[in-house]
Amino acid sequence: MNKTLLSAGLALVVGLGYSLSAFAQAKPEVLVKQRQAAMTLVGKYWGPVNRMRQGKAPFNADVAARNAGYLAALSKMPWDGFVASTKDTTAKTRALPEIWENPDKFKQAADNFQSAAAKLAAVSKGDEDGFKAAAGALGKTCGGCHNDFRQK
Amino acid sequence: MNKTLLSAGLALVVGLGYSLSAFAQAKPEVLVKQRQAAMTLVGKYWGPVNRMRQGKAPFNADVAARNAGYLAALSKMPWDGFVASTKDTTAKTRALPEIWENPDKFKQAADNFQSAAAKLAAVSKGDEDGFKAAAGALGKTCGGCHNDFRQK
Repeated sequence: MNKTLLSAGLALVVGLGYSLSAFAQAKPEVLVKQRQAAMTLVGKYWGPVNRMRQGKAPFNADVAARNAGYLAALSKMPWDGFVASTKDTTAKTRALPEIWENPDKFKQAADNFQSAAAKLAAVSKGDEDGFKAAAGALGKTCGGCHNDFRQK
Repeated sequence: MNKTLLSAGLALVVGLGYSLSAFAQAKPEVLVKQRQAAMTLVGKYWGPVNRMRQGKAPFNADVAARNAGYLAALSKMPWDGFVASTKDTTAKTRALPEIWENPDKFKQAADNFQSAAAKLAAVSKGDEDGFKAAAGALGKTCGGCHNDFRQK
């Protein structure tokens, strides 16, 4: 194992840490289902945020704050489901092998998403401009994984 | 519409409030998928909590606090997916018609679950006994819906 791979492996282990130890028993199909569930809910709560950001729905400070809080929590949930055992699962998934071939880049993209979601949740309630700017920044991070690590 | 039904309807509208207004466009199949996704993740984070509670896994304060926080958020997510339009969906669901026939009881069961999850999240980090007691109380609320409102 070369040094880069080793450090990538270590970063993953450190990053996922206790999650892996708690879920080591889960079957690949279960892990796939769980990570997809997190993405389904990200979609549920991102939709109204994005419509407000685009001006397609009126800004609602309560919905904005609630959804941002949910997104911050949900943004942390998919990643421990991307363990190597899921690479060859027969479960229906659009995850590409690049995830495990380029773990540093994947982890960076996942980190960017989580960090942008945390920033959206940190916007003061009622700050419409700040919310829309942070929502735009969050939206840009989706492509980090969806462009390079997910089947079209 | 009699008075009981009216008040039940109002309670539902007030309780779900802006959620309904934000998701009114979602198709029944999407709503079913989203509420099931929330339950899938409740299962993901409840599993380790329950194993710690039962002494089948060693108590880990970090996992306990993290999962409790996630469960508190997730406990709020399924309910706006139980709108009447999903009653006759062709999507695979074990939701029983009793949900819409007895909305007060269903809402109470959902509220009990959310309240018990919030209490678990409020336990001080590292308080193993408090955590296990609150986890036991949370576990007891699952049956509130699963016994009466879900197909066996």
